[in-house]
Amino acid sequence: MELKKRIDVAAGRRPADLVLKNGRIVNVLSCEIHAGDIAMSGDRIAGIGQYEGEETVDLAGRYVCPGFIDAHVHIESSMLSVPEFAKVVVAHGTTAVITDPHEIANVMGAEGIRFMLSSSKYCPIYVYFMASASVPASEFESAGGELRALDLHPFLSDRWVLGLAEMMNYHDVIAGDPESLDKLLLTDDRPIDGHAPGLTGRDLCAYVTAGIHTDHECTTLEEAREKLRLGMSIMIREGSQARNLDALLPLVQPDTLDRFMFATDDKDVDDLLTEGHVDHIIRRAVASGMNPVHAVKLATINPARHFGLDHLGAVAPHRLATFAILDDLEQCRVDRVYQAGRLVYADGQVLETDEGVRRPKMLRGSINVHWIEPEHFAINAPGEGEFDVHVIEVMEDRIDTGRSIARIRADGGQLHADPKRDLCKLAVVERHMASGNVGLGFVRGFGFSGGAIASSVSHDAHNLVIAGTNDHDMYVAAVHIVKIRGGFCVVKQGQVLGEVPLPIAGLMSTVDAQTLSGQLRVLHEAAQALDGKLRRPFMALSFLSLSVIGELKLTDQGLIDVGKFELIDLLVSGAPGGM
Amino acid sequence: MELKKRIDVAAGRRPADLVLKNGRIVNVLSCEIHAGDIAMSGDRIAGIGQYEGEETVDLAGRYVCPGFIDAHVHIESSMLSVPEFAKVVVAHGTTAVITDPHEIANVMGAEGIRFMLSSSKYCPIYVYFMASASVPASEFESAGGELRALDLHPFLSDRWVLGLAEMMNYHDVIAGDPESLDKLLLTDDRPIDGHAPGLTGRDLCAYVTAGIHTDHECTTLEEAREKLRLGMSIMIREGSQARNLDALLPLVQPDTLDRFMFATDDKDVDDLLTEGHVDHIIRRAVASGMNPVHAVKLATINPARHFGLDHLGAVAPHRLATFAILDDLEQCRVDRVYQAGRLVYADGQVLETDEGVRRPKMLRGSINVHWIEPEHFAINAPGEGEFDVHVIEVMEDRIDTGRSIARIRADGGQLHADPKRDLCKLAVVERHMASGNVGLGFVRGFGFSGGAIASSVSHDAHNLVIAGTNDHDMYVAAVHIVKIRGGFCVVKQGQVLGEVPLPIAGLMSTVDAQTLSGQLRVLHEAAQALDGKLRRPFMALSFLSLSVIGELKLTDQGLIDVGKFELIDLLVSGAPGGM
Repeated sequence: MELKKRIDVAAGRRPADLVLKNGRIVNVLSCEIHAGDIAMSGDRIAGIGQYEGEETVDLAGRYVCPGFIDAHVHIESSMLSVPEFAKVVVAHGTTAVITDPHEIANVMGAEGIRFMLSSSKYCPIYVYFMASASVPASEFESAGGELRALDLHPFLSDRWVLGLAEMMNYHDVIAGDPESLDKLLLTDDRPIDGHAPGLTGRDLCAYVTAGIHTDHECTTLEEAREKLRLGMSIMIREGSQARNLDALLPLVQPDTLDRFMFATDDKDVDDLLTEGHVDHIIRRAVASGMNPVHAVKLATINPARHFGLDHLGAVAPHRLATFAILDDLEQCRVDRVYQAGRLVYADGQVLETDEGVRRPKMLRGSINVHWIEPEHFAINAPGEGEFDVHVIEVMEDRIDTGRSIARIRADGGQLHADPKRDLCKLAVVERHMASGNVGLGFVRGFGFSGGAIASSVSHDAHNLVIAGTNDHDMYVAAVHIVKIRGGFCVVKQGQVLGEVPLPIAGLMSTVDAQTLSGQLRVLHEAAQALDGKLRRPFMALSFLSLSVIGELKLTDQGLIDVGKFELIDLLVSGAPGGM
Repeated sequence: MELKKRIDVAAGRRPADLVLKNGRIVNVLSCEIHAGDIAMSGDRIAGIGQYEGEETVDLAGRYVCPGFIDAHVHIESSMLSVPEFAKVVVAHGTTAVITDPHEIANVMGAEGIRFMLSSSKYCPIYVYFMASASVPASEFESAGGELRALDLHPFLSDRWVLGLAEMMNYHDVIAGDPESLDKLLLTDDRPIDGHAPGLTGRDLCAYVTAGIHTDHECTTLEEAREKLRLGMSIMIREGSQARNLDALLPLVQPDTLDRFMFATDDKDVDDLLTEGHVDHIIRRAVASGMNPVHAVKLATINPARHFGLDHLGAVAPHRLATFAILDDLEQCRVDRVYQAGRLVYADGQVLETDEGVRRPKMLRGSINVHWIEPEHFAINAPGEGEFDVHVIEVMEDRIDTGRSIARIRADGGQLHADPKRDLCKLAVVERHMASGNVGLGFVRGFGFSGGAIASSVSHDAHNLVIAGTNDHDMYVAAVHIVKIRGGFCVVKQGQVLGEVPLPIAGLMSTVDAQTLSGQLRVLHEAAQALDGKLRRPFMALSFLSLSVIGELKLTDQGLIDVGKFELIDLLVSGAPGGM
């Protein structure tokens, strides 16, 4: 019996399976660094002290941290499949993540969540789930899935599902919307993650009293302080877009350490490869003056305790033998990683994963578009002359948008893009139910001189979104995304100049991280032929449909005034923007 | 629906049921003290900020703490029934305890635990249970109950049972004894309390790797430091006998705060009435220089988190409206107490408990003694002349014992007590199964000039224990305890001078705390007729049978050499001490 064997090893009656010697243990329980042999039995730590084993590894003074935990991440945002994501992050010392499969759930519904659950089973890291609570994000987006309380209920019986994912629709929670309350009640006191950007005062109290006890959207110290007081655990987020560490770190004091965790939320493959994952947050926190043991605590025992993962988070007997071994603590430089007693990363290589053993079957294709023709991208003018249209203003590295008005002269009965004034046309083609919905509008900020770009990644409904200077290139780009079953492409003069296929739900690649990163580099080089001025035009494009943030957005249903939370006409007074 | 109503209250759309205004909130989450109205809806906190309610209470600057939690207590040691214990401690701000019904389980087995569970249902405090793991304490004690893994299993389905109580038999755990391992395994990752006095090194690792994650037996800083490093949460105990705060407090640092809790373990009715309960520990910690908010944290959110009681432990929306309102924070002076939104203690009075609603049926009588006669207390000499006998040395305020040897001259074929040399006879009469077992020996330290005292409280098997200067008074005392169905008595020259009935399992009284305290005072006054020199002779008497601590102990089976953990003869070489 495993327990008997482990006790025998701890008591010194039989040799350990493996002993790590000469390590410096980063102890997040006693908040100190100390020496000690670590004796393992099976997947657990048996004892710490003086031990001999069947096998002994000399750590030569390296630091032994508990494996890092990302408290909140949407794996889809890496554009990698779960096993490939796992391989990238385990090399950075991450051994567990708590993920909300919110993106794939918007595309595939419950089937998407099941796919993520099954594809996470043969990974070098533990992938825990929160049941996606906000699908779709709003009634103005035609998503591929809709998850009501009854749809989420079965997932809460899965031992890898820890609770309910971020309740993004905080308006509904505060209003006491019955469907939202049903979701809260079905969790039966399990953890519920929050998403409450800028929420304060009574509204915040209403959100917290509903049982929502984390937030990863704090951007200011004052906001985080209020949430901390009200009992929320604060996830300090450093992702690709949103980076809140500098703002929030001053709030983290020794006696409130246990109320904070680190999270990445959304981080793309390139940032993961170049910066790292949770290790990057630790590194940055330490560089800002945080005690390294405290920083490691936020990345290990704190999320483990919050989510009830009692076997993780610390180097101590009885817990899983899951370690990030560091060459350098301040720099958080990962030398090797043990997961449940097995070496899974060393010498720059991820070792012996089980992924070859069994692979989940592929998802069905997710791109289900009603037959489209070039004329579907035409915006008909209501007559001759000039017309004022609403224009979305896109900005580098922001997920919100501005808005403006532009005057366009009708030409052949239509309103065209005008590259000279940096006015592109924007189209959103519904791609889940083949409804034929196409939303049309204008966008400024890409700076394209010609051509079009298209993407099947477009938060949160992930319909096809196409920005271009002419209808034909937009048409070709849209059709090409359908052909490659989702992804990104660049088109100019009817020719596809570059592509990145993302066949898993139109969100994720099937290739490894390095290959994907290479594909993305080639894509961005191809996009230079369009003379765009944004550094990351596809990232910008992917947020133009998110109807819950920014001033003006376009979904397949048409133009959304986000402030008024209603559909508006494309013409300032005139015909509707949608067809 | 309660959740909807609470959200409405928090959002300010409807008035709170009750608002506490002008309080200073002791916030154990943000580790600060701040202002704020506390709005309640039903049994929960809806919001903190600015609120109006159906009813408003002005706290006039008083401190609002979360209700205190005793992380580990044997309620039986108070000698009060659960409802009476609850009334005493709620007046000291305690609103929840985690109890191990270890004493009654030793007397009544599973029936005793069920009785405690049912009698805790109509109390002004929450009584959570840990399933008693060590009944009996050793094979040398004839207890009234024996709880094996299969006996404990049903209790773990009870929502008020949080896990497995202290694994006192640490020798068995470390040895990998199958029955102990079965108990550990059946908890299925729920909390398991530890009891590991002085355990260190590999043995301690073996104990921890078995899944045991708390300890309340630390007496030195070094001992606690090692346990902390290995992942144990440290319960700092201040009870009637064992007081460890002074020794351990220096280990509690701001960044390790979350690894400590306060507990009383065993505290009798008089100490509860005069000193207080958890409030007394807070008061002492603050007097020793601890930050008061930190001290309150060890008494509230820390045990709540450890035991997964997410609704308790903090003043924050969504949690139960359970508060200790203090006049003075440093002195921890309790003005009033709210439990789940209701005022349960104010103006020195415990208010509106439910105890009248329904009382559990009484336990069967627990004193089941084989017919005894005066001659059962005789110690026969093996012949004429003088004999060396082992003597238990009893000490004030200690539960361990010393040992010595005394030479006694046979008189009429028997060995008698010798008050001139402070040599009493000691008898332990089995009282559960009417087996007729009587253990006999000698004890020094009581200093009685005549008479006898008897008790049915004798750890852990709680057999009858009688110390006296002559066989007849010992006989009368033993018979009197049977007559009063358990308790304490004092006898001199065949007359009962004083008694305290403890009819609930021979451990607990049915009267209220003040009455019991009065009875105990009268008892101790009566005992003065015996000229004893111990301040608390009954406390000393009650530990003379505990076979797992001290040097020499007496059980109904005979004299125990605790170091060798074996039965020995009463005569240094000669006839056995038992009959």
